[in-house]
Amino acid sequence: MIKIVLIGSGNLAYHLIKQILLCEELTLVQVVARHPKTISDFLSDVSVIADVSQIAEADLYIIAVSDSVIETISASLPFNNQLVVHTSGSQSIEVLSAKNRRGVLYPLQTFSKNKTVNFNELPFCIEAENEKDSQLLERITALFTAKFYHINSQQRLALHVSAVFASNFVNHLYQISEKICDDNQVPFELLHPLITETASKIKTLSPLEAQTGPAVRRDISILEKHISFLHKNKTAHSIYKLITDSIQKLYVQKL
Amino acid sequence: MIKIVLIGSGNLAYHLIKQILLCEELTLVQVVARHPKTISDFLSDVSVIADVSQIAEADLYIIAVSDSVIETISASLPFNNQLVVHTSGSQSIEVLSAKNRRGVLYPLQTFSKNKTVNFNELPFCIEAENEKDSQLLERITALFTAKFYHINSQQRLALHVSAVFASNFVNHLYQISEKICDDNQVPFELLHPLITETASKIKTLSPLEAQTGPAVRRDISILEKHISFLHKNKTAHSIYKLITDSIQKLYVQKL
Repeated sequence: MIKIVLIGSGNLAYHLIKQILLCEELTLVQVVARHPKTISDFLSDVSVIADVSQIAEADLYIIAVSDSVIETISASLPFNNQLVVHTSGSQSIEVLSAKNRRGVLYPLQTFSKNKTVNFNELPFCIEAENEKDSQLLERITALFTAKFYHINSQQRLALHVSAVFASNFVNHLYQISEKICDDNQVPFELLHPLITETASKIKTLSPLEAQTGPAVRRDISILEKHISFLHKNKTAHSIYKLITDSIQKLYVQKL
Repeated sequence: MIKIVLIGSGNLAYHLIKQILLCEELTLVQVVARHPKTISDFLSDVSVIADVSQIAEADLYIIAVSDSVIETISASLPFNNQLVVHTSGSQSIEVLSAKNRRGVLYPLQTFSKNKTVNFNELPFCIEAENEKDSQLLERITALFTAKFYHINSQQRLALHVSAVFASNFVNHLYQISEKICDDNQVPFELLHPLITETASKIKTLSPLEAQTGPAVRRDISILEKHISFLHKNKTAHSIYKLITDSIQKLYVQKL
């Protein structure tokens, strides 16, 4: 039985608590939360405290809080030489205080409190300073998902930047797309199947092979028509030009 | 029984031929194709000719060719007052010769010859100059899909621009994302679940509500870290800054 203490009460903390409680091989001995209201669903299943001074003994301490407070919380822990991990995509393992054995357990997904997350499909990135801790993190992660990867801090930063492009920025393009539809009384739902197909295609083709559209075809007449269509929407206009340009440069290089 | 002649031999022509042959209420009387090799799968099911001078009589003529040749082909048809439609997202109904009754049948999806398309899920945009032709197009489309929409030429252009953002440009962001992964020895497949979730989320939330990430959170320390990470990749760097800026402007407006 592996004993875990979790620190945090945000969306990720919520889903981790839920998942840990489901695993028979794990015991969630305590949650440290300044805002226990957000995790009130679990008050009958686990002891919740507000302050680290009362923290229990455990095999693993998971700090699932905002990036900006990881360092402070890690430094405030009243013990040494324990395994302490954070869950951030963009923070190095080194923001954790060196008085403990350090690690990272980073699940690559967007979490919303009210949406169920399928942990079976969830990739987890593991990092630890020594082999034994690495194995423990692997053992725990394997209870959640078949997809775990050993990723160091520099790779994790790269992954986080990649995720911003493939998720946050993609969503912003969806938003621009929806705005153009709304402005022209076209239902955005018309684009749903295309959006689904575009996201699904890159599981069998690389994005480089999957590229279609007027930019890669160098269809100047359509490109001009689109740019002229967007002349009143300064931001969309700039993004259209910059990405078209980027696509064209890429495929010239590949010719 | 509705008689159809299809002109074209590209990917869309291929899938339309296949679909029309499946519908008992439709008869594909002829295909006009300069390059019959690409549609050789159907040579035993339908008569294929190379030149419009031999074109058969039909209730509907579908011109499924590249945008740049629609006008020429439509002008070269050796008859008047028949229903002739094109299948393009960005061309007005008016590129078709006025000597015939004009219309548009635009399926909103990317087509690759070797990938099966689920027509049931495929949105079709219909346009016609008169009510009777509009009804015929509706009747035919209803045999393919439950999702058909009456969309005029200006709306269809808006839809096509939206589709470029939501599909072609999104795919380019996937490509940048994959490149960053490759450069840092991280498997791109780690991002697949996030990409799927991002595309699926906007079916229940608007993209405006679904936005997450450091730009909308105004997490300056992460933004700076990412921009510095991208300093060697000029294009990705410019796109990162422009889209981050666009997200921040949008959410300031909404505050």
